[in-house]
Parts: sequence; C-alpha cells; structure tokens
Amino acid sequence: SRSINLAVIPGDGIGQEVVAEGLKVLSAVLPQDVKLETKEYDFGARRYHATGETLTDADLERLRQHDAILLGAIGDPSVPSGVLERGFLLKLRFAFDHHVNLRPSKLLPGVATPLAGDPQIDFVVVREGTEGPYTGNGGTIRKGTEHEVATEVSVNTAYGVERVVRDAFARAQARPRKKLTLVHKNNVLTFAGHLWTNVFNRVAEEYPEVTTEYIHVDAATIYLVTQPERFDVIVTDNLFGDIITDLAAAVSGGIGVAASGNINPSGAFPSMFEPVHGSAPDIAGQGKADPTATVLSVALLLRHLGHEAEATRIEDAVSADLAERGALPARSTSEIGDALRVRVAG
Amino acid sequence: SRSINLAVIPGDGIGQEVVAEGLKVLSAVLPQDVKLETKEYDFGARRYHATGETLTDADLERLRQHDAILLGAIGDPSVPSGVLERGFLLKLRFAFDHHVNLRPSKLLPGVATPLAGDPQIDFVVVREGTEGPYTGNGGTIRKGTEHEVATEVSVNTAYGVERVVRDAFARAQARPRKKLTLVHKNNVLTFAGHLWTNVFNRVAEEYPEVTTEYIHVDAATIYLVTQPERFDVIVTDNLFGDIITDLAAAVSGGIGVAASGNINPSGAFPSMFEPVHGSAPDIAGQGKADPTATVLSVALLLRHLGHEAEATRIEDAVSADLAERGALPARSTSEIGDALRVRVAG
Ligand SMILES: CC(C)[C@H](C(=O)O)[C@@H](O)C(=O)O
Ligand SMILES: CC(C)[C@H](C(=O)O)[C@@H](O)C(=O)O
Repeated sequence: SRSINLAVIPGDGIGQEVVAEGLKVLSAVLPQDVKLETKEYDFGARRYHATGETLTDADLERLRQHDAILLGAIGDPSVPSGVLERGFLLKLRFAFDHHVNLRPSKLLPGVATPLAGDPQIDFVVVREGTEGPYTGNGGTIRKGTEHEVATEVSVNTAYGVERVVRDAFARAQARPRKKLTLVHKNNVLTFAGHLWTNVFNRVAEEYPEVTTEYIHVDAATIYLVTQPERFDVIVTDNLFGDIITDLAAAVSGGIGVAASGNINPSGAFPSMFEPVHGSAPDIAGQGKADPTATVLSVALLLRHLGHEAEATRIEDAVSADLAERGALPARSTSEIGDALRVRVAG
Repeated sequence: SRSINLAVIPGDGIGQEVVAEGLKVLSAVLPQDVKLETKEYDFGARRYHATGETLTDADLERLRQHDAILLGAIGDPSVPSGVLERGFLLKLRFAFDHHVNLRPSKLLPGVATPLAGDPQIDFVVVREGTEGPYTGNGGTIRKGTEHEVATEVSVNTAYGVERVVRDAFARAQARPRKKLTLVHKNNVLTFAGHLWTNVFNRVAEEYPEVTTEYIHVDAATIYLVTQPERFDVIVTDNLFGDIITDLAAAVSGGIGVAASGNINPSGAFPSMFEPVHGSAPDIAGQGKADPTATVLSVALLLRHLGHEAEATRIEDAVSADLAERGALPARSTSEIGDALRVRVAG
C-alpha cells in the first residue's frame, strides 16, 4: 500500500530509545511515494501510575484504526509483576487476535554467540499467541493461607491450533529446507499434546514436500544448544514458544538483535511488532541499548505490509553493520541507528 | 543403615545396560558390613505389551517395602506417547510423593560443553515433583472434531510449594555460596506465580544468610547459556524444572552424565534415583550408552540413605574418569562401568 498509518508505543525504559531509532530507519528506507503517518501512544508504567489504566476499550478502538503497531518495551519495577504484562501486552495480543507470534533466529556472520564452534543457526519459531497457559484462566482459593490453591488452565482449541499450524506449514513450504518441527510435551500434557499432535499430523498430509518432526520441549532446549542447525521452522504453543525463543535469541546473537511480530494474518486487526527484549530499566536513558532488535522488527512490519524490498534492505543493512561491529569501538543507541539509517538510504 | 534393600527397575532400551553398571559400582563401593539386597522388577514396555499393565496397586505395595529404587529408563516407540510416562513414571512419582526432584549440574574438568569459553557450572535444581501441570488434571471435549477443546490444569498448593521451597532453602544454606533462585513466570501465570513468589519470600525471612533472586523461566534459559555461574540452587515448578534441567544437563556435559533423585524427604515412601536421559532405543543393546549418569544417580541414592562417604567416593571416581576421557579411545558401557568400579574399590 502507498501509505502506512503506524501506531507507535515506545513504552517503558529503553523502549523510548530503541523505538526512536526504529522510526529513523523506517523513514529512511521508505520510497518517496509511500506516505508514513505515525501517532504515538503513552501506554506503560507512566500512564498506569498517572491514571491507573493499562489499556481501555477506547484505546483499543483507536489502535485498531492503524495499519500496524510498533512497540518498544513495556514494564517497570515500580509496577507489580503481571499488571502491565496481563493488562497491556497480553490484552493487546488477545484483543487483536495476534495468533501468529513470529520469531526468527539467524546467527549472522561476525555476531558473537555463547556456543562453541561455528554453529549454523537460521530458523523461525511460529509461537501460538492467543491460547495455552496465557489465557488467564485459572484462579486462587484461600489466598495467603496455608491452604491456598492456585490453578492455571492451558486452553487449546482445534480452531486455534489448526490456524497456527497451517501458518507454520505454509512458511516451511516457502523456505528452501522445507522442514517443520512441532515442539510440545505430549507425553505428559496428553490432552493438549494429542490435540496438537493430531492437528499437526493431519495438516502435514496437505504438505507432502515438508519434512516433519516432533520434539519434546525439554529435548528441544538441548538441541538448541547442541545442534541448532537441525531447525528450520518450529511451531509450538504459547508458553513453550516464550521459553524457547528466549533461548533461541541467546544462542543467535542475544536479545539485542531478536525481533518479533505479533501477527493477525487475516488483517482483521493491526499486527504488532516488537523486540523480544524487555524494558531493561537498569540501562534506560543512557544510550546503551542496542536498537537492532527494534530495527529488525520494523523489517518484519514492512514485510507484513507487503514492502518486501524495503524489509530486505533493512535486514541487509543490519547484516552489514553486525559484520563490522567486532572492529568498531562501542557505539551508542543513536549511533547504531544512524549507521543503519545511512545504510538503508544508501 | 547397615543394609540396603534396593528395588531395581532397568526398564527399556539402554536402561538395562546402564543399570547393570550402576549396580556394579554400587556393590564395589559399599563396605563389607553393609548388606545389599536387590530385587529386579520388569516394568516398562515389555510388561505393558505382555499384560497391558504399567504399574498396579500390588506393584506399588511391593516397591514400597524397599529402602530406595534405582531406575534405568522407561519408554519405547512401540508404546503410544504418554502411556508409560503417565502410567508408570509419573504414577510412581505421585504415589510415593516424590516432591523433591533433585538435579545437580556440575561441569567437571575435562568434560566437553557446547558453550564457548570456560564456563563455571555448579548448581543444583530443586524441581517440584508432584504438582503443577503434571497432575493430569484437564481434559478434552469434542475430541477429533474441529470443535475440540483440550485443557491442562496446573495445580499449585501452599502445602506443596512450601515444602519444596523449604527444602531448597535448606540446601542453599548448606552450600558455600548460599544463593537461591526462584524460577517461574509470575508475570503471566499470575495465580500460581503469586503463590510461588509469596511462599518463597515468606520462607526467605527464616534464612537471612541466603541470597535470593527471582528470574522468569524464559530469561533463565538465557542465563543458563550466557552466565551459568550465576546459579547456585534453583527452585522451580514441575514443568519449568523439566525444561531447564535438560538445558542444564546439555551445558554441563550432556545427558550422559546428568543424574537425578525423586526424593520423598520424610522417608514415608522410598525415593527413586534415575539418570535424566531416556531409553534411547536407537542405541540400545549396542554397548554405546554412557552409564555415568546412572552411576552418579547411585551416588545420590547413597547420600539419601546416609552413606555420604561412599557417595563422595563415587563422585570422585567419576570426576577422575571424566578428566581422562579426552585422552582415551571410546569405551563401551561396561568398560566405563568397570573403570569406575575399579576406582571406587581402589
Ligand atoms: C513480557 C511477557 C508477557 C512476554 C511473554 O511472556 O510473552 C515476553 O516474555 C515475550 O516473550 O514477549
Ligand atoms: C519422561 C518424562 C515424563 C519426564 C518428565 O517430564 O518429568 C522426563 O522428561 C524427566 O525429566 O524425567
């Protein structure tokens, strides 16, 4: 489309700093004839402290008018754990039915990894985004007493599992290696495990060219550090996806470069793009944050909106920048953003 | 005590081979005046195929008479996923109230790790063993249809959380570094998360010398590969413990050397000791399996029964053997067992 109407949510901590760089690169990469409109929203800890609100129905209605959302990070130690996560981040993912949580992991040349040797890492995790243990189902009785019981209910539906499994098969089919791994724990979580496994096997019949495998989540963490080259596309549930994508980010260059998209493939609601990292309050405001993950999230955003060439240009600029980092002195957040801006405009 | 009445469950695949070596070392390390009686049980895939049974009430009654249980591995591709796991392994852990699932991780000198550099790894995970998403609560409606809904319920009680948290604090207090990390996902699983966090903070007041920290499970996987030296004792729920202990094993020498104890600290039921690895049917019967994890599980078993000196002798023998491995040609399962037997008898 020839215009992008973007909602920008810098959020808390380093979110502010990295989003500024993301927008810098976005403006630079877009062709003259694509009109970029941005509107900034002040969600996060400040708004919560000022008004007690995290995300209202009116907010959702406003956000809905945009083509996409760029988010920095949400979360601050001054807010009790869970309030902003459940009240803002997860509320938004659920309200806008972001069922495809896309998290690519690619170890680029020149980038440091905690793994020994020369690991080859290039896979993408398709994490389910609207079900599993993230639904908020469950509760507490006799809170605070020695007889307290707290439950968390993982909810899995054929509808929800099938749509994300289909998305993952389509992505695997489109990649050179055409391999899809289902990660679950079907030997213990047998109710959800059977649903995931059966749906996966059924959809697999429609994709004869895609090689499939099943791996338990515990074993998957082993393979991620001992043979990450084994993975091409991974599809998994919301919680397992949360866990293994942090590990995947760690082995493929760290959360400083890990991008993600919370995608509603139907387009019924705007999709949201955000770095995998959090608000890192300890380094906020010091120009120390690496904006690369946000810039790569902007690439995912552009690809989602059909601007494939621009997405690739950003990714190439990041690869080139990362390849040179070892030889450069440390740069500030905005220096990295400037370098990337120059490259994409180049 | 001056006699050990041991139940031995070799199980499936390589379980047979590694348990034989574990017993070899156990016999060799015990002083003359400690009488060792063993009784072998045929649980696992063969028994299931022959009788349809996994673990009956009568079996449990028989197992209960023993001082401890040594298990090889349970699981075979000929049995549908979940049948032996839920029907035997988890049934036993729950029936004998094995609420402390103890999994030490120590990277010994000379042992290969997938991590670069020279990581210092020496921590122990105290995984809750009788609650969380492992309870089997949940179910399926409209199975096999496009309207299927499958749920898994994580059950957490103050009673269950407090006893394992107390066990972990006591272990942390007894170690030189005196540090305890709670791993959970309390920003999303807020019902269970608050229970775990509150109990943890309350018990912490009784252990002023123990340094405490809280880490989300996703971030914990990052630290396990980027700064594993940060951990001393970790306490966590059943599922998170399952996941992070496989990763912990991977970075600290692999599942070939990862031991575990399913402990009932009260002694009301026998505790069970087993390698973290599975039955590995692909290499079964070939003398390729590393019995070290089983031998180290025997050390945990001896320590649990009060034979501290013998436990340490086994651990020292394993350290010495591992330190020399790099220089030796590959050995068979029984050759490794023999080498360890000689060392502990030495
Ligand atoms: C902050 C938290 C709610 C979130 C999640 O668990 O999904 C984060 O860890 C992520 O991976 O985006
Ligand atoms: C086999 C399986 C039931 C078991 C578990 O999930 O606890 C295993 O992975 C383990 O860690 O002992």
